[in-house]
Amino acid sequence: MADPAVLKTYFDTVDNLQDYYVERLKEAVAIKSYELADLGTHVMDGKTLKLPPAILGTYGNDQNKKTILVYGHYDVQPALIEDGWSSDPFELHETSKHQLIGRGASDDKGPVIGWLNAIEAHQKAGIEFPVNLKFCFEGMEECGSEGMDELVVREAKRYFTGVDAVCISDNYWLGVTKPCLTYGLRGISYFKITISGPGRDLHSGVFGGTVHEPMTDLFLLFSKLVSPSGDILIPGINDNVEPLTEEENKIYESIEFSMNEYHDAIGSKTTIYEDKIKTLQHRWRFPSLTIHGIEGAFSAPGTKTVLPAKITGKFSIRLVPNMEPDRINALVEKFLTEEFAKLGSKNTLNVGCVHGAKAWVSSPNHWNYVAAAKAIEKVFKVHPDYTREGGSIPITLTFQDALNKNVLLLPMGRGDDGAHSINEKLDRSNYIEGIKLFGAYLHEIAAIKAE
Amino acid sequence: MADPAVLKTYFDTVDNLQDYYVERLKEAVAIKSYELADLGTHVMDGKTLKLPPAILGTYGNDQNKKTILVYGHYDVQPALIEDGWSSDPFELHETSKHQLIGRGASDDKGPVIGWLNAIEAHQKAGIEFPVNLKFCFEGMEECGSEGMDELVVREAKRYFTGVDAVCISDNYWLGVTKPCLTYGLRGISYFKITISGPGRDLHSGVFGGTVHEPMTDLFLLFSKLVSPSGDILIPGINDNVEPLTEEENKIYESIEFSMNEYHDAIGSKTTIYEDKIKTLQHRWRFPSLTIHGIEGAFSAPGTKTVLPAKITGKFSIRLVPNMEPDRINALVEKFLTEEFAKLGSKNTLNVGCVHGAKAWVSSPNHWNYVAAAKAIEKVFKVHPDYTREGGSIPITLTFQDALNKNVLLLPMGRGDDGAHSINEKLDRSNYIEGIKLFGAYLHEIAAIKAE
Repeated sequence: MADPAVLKTYFDTVDNLQDYYVERLKEAVAIKSYELADLGTHVMDGKTLKLPPAILGTYGNDQNKKTILVYGHYDVQPALIEDGWSSDPFELHETSKHQLIGRGASDDKGPVIGWLNAIEAHQKAGIEFPVNLKFCFEGMEECGSEGMDELVVREAKRYFTGVDAVCISDNYWLGVTKPCLTYGLRGISYFKITISGPGRDLHSGVFGGTVHEPMTDLFLLFSKLVSPSGDILIPGINDNVEPLTEEENKIYESIEFSMNEYHDAIGSKTTIYEDKIKTLQHRWRFPSLTIHGIEGAFSAPGTKTVLPAKITGKFSIRLVPNMEPDRINALVEKFLTEEFAKLGSKNTLNVGCVHGAKAWVSSPNHWNYVAAAKAIEKVFKVHPDYTREGGSIPITLTFQDALNKNVLLLPMGRGDDGAHSINEKLDRSNYIEGIKLFGAYLHEIAAIKAE
Repeated sequence: MADPAVLKTYFDTVDNLQDYYVERLKEAVAIKSYELADLGTHVMDGKTLKLPPAILGTYGNDQNKKTILVYGHYDVQPALIEDGWSSDPFELHETSKHQLIGRGASDDKGPVIGWLNAIEAHQKAGIEFPVNLKFCFEGMEECGSEGMDELVVREAKRYFTGVDAVCISDNYWLGVTKPCLTYGLRGISYFKITISGPGRDLHSGVFGGTVHEPMTDLFLLFSKLVSPSGDILIPGINDNVEPLTEEENKIYESIEFSMNEYHDAIGSKTTIYEDKIKTLQHRWRFPSLTIHGIEGAFSAPGTKTVLPAKITGKFSIRLVPNMEPDRINALVEKFLTEEFAKLGSKNTLNVGCVHGAKAWVSSPNHWNYVAAAKAIEKVFKVHPDYTREGGSIPITLTFQDALNKNVLLLPMGRGDDGAHSINEKLDRSNYIEGIKLFGAYLHEIAAIKAE
């Protein structure tokens, strides 16, 4: 266990510096970091653009300490006050309820600055830093972390040599009151289905009734993918999903989660399940399929009478452990090809998987998690919930596979922070207690090593 | 029959003036008449805009002559050279094959200018004009003829008093070699189907699998509308479609129409039928259903993982005679409501018919058609095909119903003119022979009156 006296000194220092920390976050939020573009190139929509740099850093090199790799990102989602923000999204604004409102406050500038604050607080308090740190802060996370996989794999046995475990603070508490540790993420396979018929868009009055219409084919195909209650209908897709056990159900029972808050979050009561356990399980440990839209059809307001000639329907499947993207892609391709053949259409089908990422699940019994749980108890006086998430953070799996080390997701913000939305916020208490949490976590790691 | 000597003088005059007529069309094409906006207002996307004026005119007022109302439109589809035009779309350009290329050349400035040229040729040739004319040239045809229905109904017993028949030159020959008279158009019912679920767009990773997805519901609903071979599956829709008769089939047999040319027109061989007769019948005398697209879903390039919260699917049904829009709308609404209920979704369905227009069919035995057929024989030395069209020109039915007079569609351009497309053209011969046709048609009307 970490030395209580050391932790108290650290916590007091953080408390004393909290306004200074908010100022620092304000400076970070003021940087419109969706515009940075400095190093390297990537191709987007056919154009070659410069990639923003990933920042690698090292703090400490003591052979007797563990080395923790900390990942975060300094880029943010775009934001305009016209989108509906209550104040300039790039000017951090503190409300009377002590919410720090600004783009990136929670996703992910608060956590990134939080790590730096934790280091500085040790310096100011005159406390020895308990571990060696390596940093990896990237600037393309909101654009699919382009280039990051290659970097992590390349540096695994170079810059990242000696890393004992990884900590990522880029997700959120499940709700708004209780801290959590996150040990699982769903993967994804994203599909583009192109159906081509006429050589160009046609007038539906002049040609309708005489040609096979790609839109008709697409609606028939996609109607066979998933039921209104979310069951994926593609044969074989669910074969490798692990059956639910009684034990697993019990884990879900204890998680603090309110269906009312969930209905607030989605803005309606149109959930498939009424109960907490099924809802959480279908977010986290069962696959799902969402149809996102159609490219090439009429999508504007109004009443255009076009007969679209070539369209691309897009859907994705969220994957859970044991669902290998390659196998899933083969099943989807086979199913759609067979179903398309049944239509008797003269149009042409092209099925493509754009990208795939495996699900990730970690062991909450690893010392990396144990240390984090102890730190949460120290800072928040509660035992954390152990959660998974429905979305994908592909870099998580990349770190785990390339470094062969345990990866911990240690969120700073709350479930209602509204990352990617207007009025993104980070509660002052989450920010300040989060800085304490980061430091305490590292002290607990050092203590475990010593035990 | 019209006096051959008079027609010869008229035809010679038109031939002698043809370069002058091309210059005049050039001046007309140079006017970017999709930008005019001068009189009255209408509401578009919530903004009140001025309506361009409809031009009413009278030429001649001889009680002993018939009065023909001529309709055309001076507005055009937008065009930019960047769209792929071979030359500035607003600078009429004549190719080595004597195609006059320019926006509006065929749709509908060529015909409008053609009527004025026909009058002037009579003046220059010193020939008495055979009928009284009334003109109605509008500037909103490409935007749904906003305000025209009200104008025609209002002026039916005022400005249009005494009209004996109507002639509209705003469509095309079926093919590229043989003139035609058009006696039928399909109507249309355009539907917007809105499905609402969550209060805002959601992240498919975080929420997928736990909410009823509007896109899933929409694809299931629309998959029940029409078969890949074009059969409308909504119960009752086809009940009032007149059965095919042997006699009717024979009319189609004689029509000059090439499936090869049709495949060229659509840019593929993905026609449902291989034979001419079925293809023409399904364009003209059977209903069809086309799904146009979805508003509110992801439609851009790329791979966004959105779970759309509120979407509007759009489709339209082309109507044939006896299919009353009100009855069709009721059938569609009933069917979709019932099918949606079967889905067991908690989302909300809203079915709306945006606009409806009845099909139109005229009698090719009326003296208006007989005169036009004789004129075609005089100018082109062939008997015209009698055609229908798959699209809708709602003003046709408005004139017929409001004036209770026969309406003739007398095309000037060819089937490959590419109205609404890049490189819209009017063949010089169609333009010049068309001016002759307009004059000859009026002389034949006068001759029929005298017989």
